[in-house]
Order: sequence, then C-alpha cells, then structure tokens
Amino acid sequence: MRTLTISTKVRESLVDITGKVAETVAQSGVNEGICLVYAPHTTAGITINENADPDVAKDLLNYLGKLVPADFPFLHSEGNSDAHVKAMLLGSSVTVPVTGGKLAMGKWQGIYFGEFDGPRSRRCIITVLGE
Amino acid sequence: MRTLTISTKVRESLVDITGKVAETVAQSGVNEGICLVYAPHTTAGITINENADPDVAKDLLNYLGKLVPADFPFLHSEGNSDAHVKAMLLGSSVTVPVTGGKLAMGKWQGIYFGEFDGPRSRRCIITVLGE
Amino acid sequence: MRTLTISTKVRESLVDITGKVAETVAQSGVNEGICLVYAPHTTAGITINENADPDVAKDLLNYLGKLVPADFPFLHSEGNSDAHVKAMLLGSSVTVPVTGGKLAMGKWQGIYFGEFDGPRSRRCIITVLGE
Repeated sequence: MRTLTISTKVRESLVDITGKVAETVAQSGVNEGICLVYAPHTTAGITINENADPDVAKDLLNYLGKLVPADFPFLHSEGNSDAHVKAMLLGSSVTVPVTGGKLAMGKWQGIYFGEFDGPRSRRCIITVLGE
Repeated sequence: MRTLTISTKVRESLVDITGKVAETVAQSGVNEGICLVYAPHTTAGITINENADPDVAKDLLNYLGKLVPADFPFLHSEGNSDAHVKAMLLGSSVTVPVTGGKLAMGKWQGIYFGEFDGPRSRRCIITVLGE
Repeated sequence: MRTLTISTKVRESLVDITGKVAETVAQSGVNEGICLVYAPHTTAGITINENADPDVAKDLLNYLGKLVPADFPFLHSEGNSDAHVKAMLLGSSVTVPVTGGKLAMGKWQGIYFGEFDGPRSRRCIITVLGE
C-alpha cells in the first residue's frame, strides 16, 4: 500500500495520477492481479478517462457542473453539497487489472483524482493485490 | 465472505452499514488487502460519502431524485425505472483498502447501502481479500 | 486474466456479457474471491443491472441520453464528448464477489458492456482473484 499526497490548486480539477499509480505497481512486485486507487474523501473521487486531449477533462468537469449546480437548495450548510454529489457520481475508487507487472489500461486512458471542493491537500491510497 | 441482511423502511434511503463492514473486516483476519461491498440487486447500490452531518445523505437522495424523476416516460412497466437508473449511477459495489486489519477510510467517510425501490429485505455481500 | 473481444453494432448499446464472465470464473479455478470486469476504453464502461426485461436496458440508455445530450457545446472536437461523460457516469469496471466457484450475483442482475461511441471492436479484461 502507498499513500499519495495531492495538492489541488482550485475548487475543481481532474488531476492525472496515472504515472504515480504505474510507479507503485512497478514497485509492488505484483505481476498478475489488480490495483485499487482509493480517495479517502467525501468531496473528491477517482475516475478513468482520456488523457490525450486535455479538452476531454475540461468537458467532464464542465458537464458535471451543469448536471449538479452549486446553487441548488441543498440542506447541508457548508456550501459544498454539489461536491458531495459529484463525488458520488464518480465513485471513491477505480480498480485496474495488472498484468505483466503493469497496469492493463487502454491506450487513451488515464487515472484522474477528481477534486470538487479544493484547493486542499488530499490523499490517495493505492493497493496492489496479486502475485 | 459474509452476507448482511438489510430491511429498508421506505422507498428511498441511504442506510449506513460502515459498522457491519468494519466488523466483518476485523473478523476476517486479513491485515493488508481490500474489502468489496456488493449489492446483488438492480434497484439498489452502494456508495461512500459523509456520515457526520445527516443532511448530506438527504441531499444526495434529494438530488438523485431531481436528476432522475420517477415520472419520466420509461418503457419498463414496473414503475421503478428511476430506481434502476439510480442504481447504475451509484454502482453496485464499493471497494475499500484494508490496512493494519482495518478499513483505510477517511475520517468523514461512511459506506451506504442505497435503496431506491423499498421497502424491501435486501442483501449485501462483503468479501475481504489479502493476507 | 482473459480478454474478451466485443463487436458493437450501433453507436450506443448495452451488451450483456454475463455468460462470458461466468465462463471465465468457472475456468479460473478460483473458489472464493472476486472478479474484476474492466473496459480499457474512454467512451465505454461496464455496469450491472437487470437483464430479465430488455426494456430496462433501453430505459438506461435512453435516460443517459437525456442526462447527457450529444449536442451540448463541448470543447473536445471529436463529437463524442457525451460518450466520455457517460463512460464516467457508468465507471470503467465492475467487481463481483465469487463464491463456490461462481459469480455471487443477484437473480435479476446481468453484467453489461456499455458502448457509447460505436460501432467499434472493443475489449473487456476479466481478472479473477482469490483461492
């Protein structure tokens, strides 16, 4: 298990953590198995999507903002309920197969830490299981 | 593996099952690994979010109701298609890292069973993997 | 690990792959554990939902189309940003418990490969872990 620390810079962002996850898999010594990437937060999540054209990540964030506007009359009084909903829609983790000692991801896929209530110091827990 | 039985009381609710999951991890003898919490249903799901302020769970349910209104002209004739969509948006499981024999969750995180077509008797399957 | 090849026929579809996943679990020799079903794509995902009444899958696709219309003014110029958002909402994988050498799924559950930018030749990576 390895814990990454991520300093997010703005209220909402998708931070590409693929390289750090790949590094952790390489160091784990696991050849065949799975890798769990987990966000121990309630206003942040993890998702996998394209990391070739940076406009895709912008579209994902923009569209989440359209789906879940911050000014909806939420009950929770901290003003970040939209971030809780977005974290729910993304999910708190992704799991990726590991084969040949590497993440078995698609050519265009990247792993993103989704920040919805930054800027903050965040953590991300990476667990590699297998043999 | 352990199967929880959950009696939901109303059509829609987020039932906090963190304590039962933690108990299962403690009993499993697994020190380092992962815990899969799975809902074997198609109108219920599992999610992780804040369990400190109860208004957050209410906001999540209310907002899901806004995103997926029950009166949309769905084809499926049982009148619970909104529940199927909500289950899809949540996902049927969550996976949490286990370290030191415990769930490696964030301070504010709880695990919720999301009921969208209750009241019913539901099940939740908990699997702990590792060493 | 086994990689399925899936030929999707139209732009959007939910392809039932439950039988192939069950077959892979049976061949794996794993009795107790988990099965990860992973889509190595950025405009496709995996979800679990009802596969008894085919109207449910149609409702899920229709409603995703309502939640994420293709004609929103996205930045990404390939015209498939709605597919990227839908992939994010579904998630790129599902994980199912395995017990007694079989998928521990609910009676009405099926595993769907969600295509949002077809027709294409797609892959799906199945990993079974446990003993």
